[in-house]
Amino acid sequence: MKIGFVGLGQMGSAMARNLLTAGHELTVYNRTPGKADALAKDGARIASSPADAAKGVEAVLTMLADDPAVAEVTFGEHGIASGLPAGSAHLSLSTISVALARRLADEHRARRQNYLSTPVFGRPESAEARKLLVVAAGETAAVDRYHLIFEAIGRQTFVAGAEPWQANAVKLCGNFMIGSMMEAFGEAFATMRKAGIDRHLFLDVMNELFGSAVYRNYGGLIANEKFTPAGFRLRLGLKDVRLALEAAEELGSPMPFASVLRDHFISALANGQEQLDWSSVALVAARNAGLESSTKS
Amino acid sequence: MKIGFVGLGQMGSAMARNLLTAGHELTVYNRTPGKADALAKDGARIASSPADAAKGVEAVLTMLADDPAVAEVTFGEHGIASGLPAGSAHLSLSTISVALARRLADEHRARRQNYLSTPVFGRPESAEARKLLVVAAGETAAVDRYHLIFEAIGRQTFVAGAEPWQANAVKLCGNFMIGSMMEAFGEAFATMRKAGIDRHLFLDVMNELFGSAVYRNYGGLIANEKFTPAGFRLRLGLKDVRLALEAAEELGSPMPFASVLRDHFISALANGQEQLDWSSVALVAARNAGLESSTKS
Amino acid sequence: MKIGFVGLGQMGSAMARNLLTAGHELTVYNRTPGKADALAKDGARIASSPADAAKGVEAVLTMLADDPAVAEVTFGEHGIASGLPAGSAHLSLSTISVALARRLADEHRARRQNYLSTPVFGRPESAEARKLLVVAAGETAAVDRYHLIFEAIGRQTFVAGAEPWQANAVKLCGNFMIGSMMEAFGEAFATMRKAGIDRHLFLDVMNELFGSAVYRNYGGLIANEKFTPAGFRLRLGLKDVRLALEAAEELGSPMPFASVLRDHFISALANGQEQLDWSSVALVAARNAGLESSTKS
Amino acid sequence: MKIGFVGLGQMGSAMARNLLTAGHELTVYNRTPGKADALAKDGARIASSPADAAKGVEAVLTMLADDPAVAEVTFGEHGIASGLPAGSAHLSLSTISVALARRLADEHRARRQNYLSTPVFGRPESAEARKLLVVAAGETAAVDRYHLIFEAIGRQTFVAGAEPWQANAVKLCGNFMIGSMMEAFGEAFATMRKAGIDRHLFLDVMNELFGSAVYRNYGGLIANEKFTPAGFRLRLGLKDVRLALEAAEELGSPMPFASVLRDHFISALANGQEQLDWSSVALVAARNAGLESSTKS
Repeated sequence: MKIGFVGLGQMGSAMARNLLTAGHELTVYNRTPGKADALAKDGARIASSPADAAKGVEAVLTMLADDPAVAEVTFGEHGIASGLPAGSAHLSLSTISVALARRLADEHRARRQNYLSTPVFGRPESAEARKLLVVAAGETAAVDRYHLIFEAIGRQTFVAGAEPWQANAVKLCGNFMIGSMMEAFGEAFATMRKAGIDRHLFLDVMNELFGSAVYRNYGGLIANEKFTPAGFRLRLGLKDVRLALEAAEELGSPMPFASVLRDHFISALANGQEQLDWSSVALVAARNAGLESSTKS
Repeated sequence: MKIGFVGLGQMGSAMARNLLTAGHELTVYNRTPGKADALAKDGARIASSPADAAKGVEAVLTMLADDPAVAEVTFGEHGIASGLPAGSAHLSLSTISVALARRLADEHRARRQNYLSTPVFGRPESAEARKLLVVAAGETAAVDRYHLIFEAIGRQTFVAGAEPWQANAVKLCGNFMIGSMMEAFGEAFATMRKAGIDRHLFLDVMNELFGSAVYRNYGGLIANEKFTPAGFRLRLGLKDVRLALEAAEELGSPMPFASVLRDHFISALANGQEQLDWSSVALVAARNAGLESSTKS
Repeated sequence: MKIGFVGLGQMGSAMARNLLTAGHELTVYNRTPGKADALAKDGARIASSPADAAKGVEAVLTMLADDPAVAEVTFGEHGIASGLPAGSAHLSLSTISVALARRLADEHRARRQNYLSTPVFGRPESAEARKLLVVAAGETAAVDRYHLIFEAIGRQTFVAGAEPWQANAVKLCGNFMIGSMMEAFGEAFATMRKAGIDRHLFLDVMNELFGSAVYRNYGGLIANEKFTPAGFRLRLGLKDVRLALEAAEELGSPMPFASVLRDHFISALANGQEQLDWSSVALVAARNAGLESSTKS
Repeated sequence: MKIGFVGLGQMGSAMARNLLTAGHELTVYNRTPGKADALAKDGARIASSPADAAKGVEAVLTMLADDPAVAEVTFGEHGIASGLPAGSAHLSLSTISVALARRLADEHRARRQNYLSTPVFGRPESAEARKLLVVAAGETAAVDRYHLIFEAIGRQTFVAGAEPWQANAVKLCGNFMIGSMMEAFGEAFATMRKAGIDRHLFLDVMNELFGSAVYRNYGGLIANEKFTPAGFRLRLGLKDVRLALEAAEELGSPMPFASVLRDHFISALANGQEQLDWSSVALVAARNAGLESSTKS
């Protein structure tokens, strides 16, 4: 399939490479130029703009940091919307707001283009290993049409519904689930420390209890206060929980855990954790218990 | 080893049987008499009182519902404390307060008896299958001395510290981790329902993401609103989170997630969920989103 | 002074009338035409558009429901920005976001117009009685220049700072203080009801204790569940607390009480309280305690 | 009337003096002896024990710090219960738990003594000025019988119900209302500081808006960070909100604001505010916003 790909950060590069490997014909674009070189060596064409990356393709994929980036790449000058053929689709892999997903659907439809929300779960290692979870939503025919793309980048695809924004709601609530686990660990570890109990002992029990790699990984980062390099920055964590709360507000669903999480992300940023991984939200519970971080933040 | 066992509910009976199977010489006691019969057939002696169950043993184990039950069985008339030989130990498997654990340690010490807190993680099925996780705390020599008991009832033993109450703190924080997961599921499911997204789709994604049997089980109960029969009653869930908050308050550690959980357990009881499983705390988030339960509570 | 006034709801009409009474030369505009008639009888000129209302004035005041309304009236076709003379000022009385206040300041400055944020505290009765509290912010010279306007509409003026948005931050935090009082009443009344204690007894004690007309009024509305007619709709209360939280997030200040309030406003809307006064947020605490409202919402 | 008075702290001494001034015959007792001397000079008899203070009186009043103190003074050796004549009453002015109030009612009844809960609102200055608010509950005849006592110490008496504990529930919820105001101030002030807005400006607006001496006093303490000397220690504030939450839990009423308050009191104590006034709970919001206290706590 002829595919465009915009956004070559760690996640995007890994996915683009897997699309190449799967035999797709790939055109790539990244605002900062150097990032595309490695892919070009392996056969990708480098586009001069998002519009150029979308020209003549069946699908153009975007993997970008946030709403403004996706909006700019899509609707800005030389944006995707101006290059994508009618009948082709924009697949947004990014974690964006429900509101932007709706706008993307509307504006692409007005141009007779398709739009699918296809956010993914997984850290860069999973992206490289084709182990991402893909959550797709949009018109059934369109979702079906692009299944080879999903297979090339992930280990499993879930169809959330016929409205693209529904996939974004699933992704945002999924990130909320992870964030809630981190906050719960933060509170429990703080209590353990005040009780003179080794954090790793508690983590070992939780690992046996839950038997989950996600608990093992994040629990380990928190127990060891290993918050740099940041796999996912605190500010992005705050963005995601804010988007979850906005979506839930519009849908009429209060989420008190998400509210606590949001408050703690804000506190973390206000206390100098800008450069740390989002799992460092656990330090807020520690500080509120009068504990010093062992690694000064 | 000569062992006494007091409290033959679902959990206690399963553990007692495993102790018998492992070849220990067992005396059992239960307030309601019939419960001991099956064990008696398999060789257990039936005691006439907790004191009688503790007479001449190396260790007496208690598995009871709450603080008052453990206090009564230990310090009441014909209680364990009056029967247990000096140098032998009381091992409390129950989920009790840090405060009671301290009192048990003090009063047994005054009688030259040992006391260990040895709470367990696992539902009745795990107890039957010898798959419990045991968290033990108390004097190292005593913990070592009883390792055969732990092996007979569980799949792994964790030593939390030299103070018995530390094991209770671990157990209470562990239950808090499970409760937090349930609340997070409740909030996410409510948002999914308002978004017109199938709860099972969201659960499937979470199961792939977390890969945890605990998520699978509780997530399934909540998605299906299968809250009867109650594996663990709401009121016991409220008790556990209250004990966690009390311990954390004394230790100087605020736990805002635990506070939300406590509020929601109270709301659940105030709205008629007395007979339901503690996972039905998820209905509070649903109600706050204006959703009806499919199974009227 | 020659003044334009846009937005003739209950609040706006009362303020406009007081400006007329104080001897100012007034041009008024309202989207729905009839509202201006009474003022016209008393000497106000009726404008054909916001731009027309701003033409040739020293100051144009806006009193509108929310951000989109203020943005439209200011920057839309025939908007204020296109009519207001250079050197004159736009004074926004509305409760708007810090973000919009910044945009208003920037865009008016680019047109060599002044912009002041001048939100007010008070219900319609206070507006009629010239008893509003005015919080003004912007360039000192501009604030000084318009003091006669503030005196015509309010009983006291507070200067929050040199940046217009600072006045909006004060207003949003002030509404948060009122909202917090309502939530606290809601929780206390629910507990009183479950205790079999007359709500009015509790209210009487609070009235003696706090000696505040605000407590007396809102406490009375809540104790009597007198939520219609809505003096200030729930949805506007939700809007205000959301704007407070957005401002606080940007400023790096977590506000957990505001988060609870927001959750409860959402729950109130999700449970059918759309048409009720914002003080009906107290019903959420009642429902969570299993209490029926006496007046079905 | 012949009256005993136990507990001569700041509050107790002021009330005892007012009872003397009103012409009652007073016997006083305090654990630390010196405190009674000034009252003795003015005609009070000094008792040798609580029992002695209760001997032959129509009513014995207690004004003590917490549940354990009241329980000890009442049921301990030479306690009130052993000295008070049948038909006379114990009036507890202290802020105690609903649970202890129930126990006091039961045990006094068993001895054919009366028990009334008569907690008071007001700081020491109000006690001296006879301006306390008294909330009384218990058998109507008993409440009526002692109205002269209430008049001697307070400016107004409210009758909460026929069950003594109901007065304690009112008092605890009233303190919750004050605590909620302090937390709301803390959050708003933190946001103001991050916005570069003078805290006193915000306080001035709130004083005009609410017109409440309670807001003026506490708002002033918080704006000036004047937390010593402590009029009411943080630990007592934590105790009161815990008792409110315990009562509300038993009554089936979740109080999320009280939960936040409790978390913040715990955080305040964990961060070295042991010696400060309870209004210093506002520093928690400041710290969570990354703000330093001007007065190092």
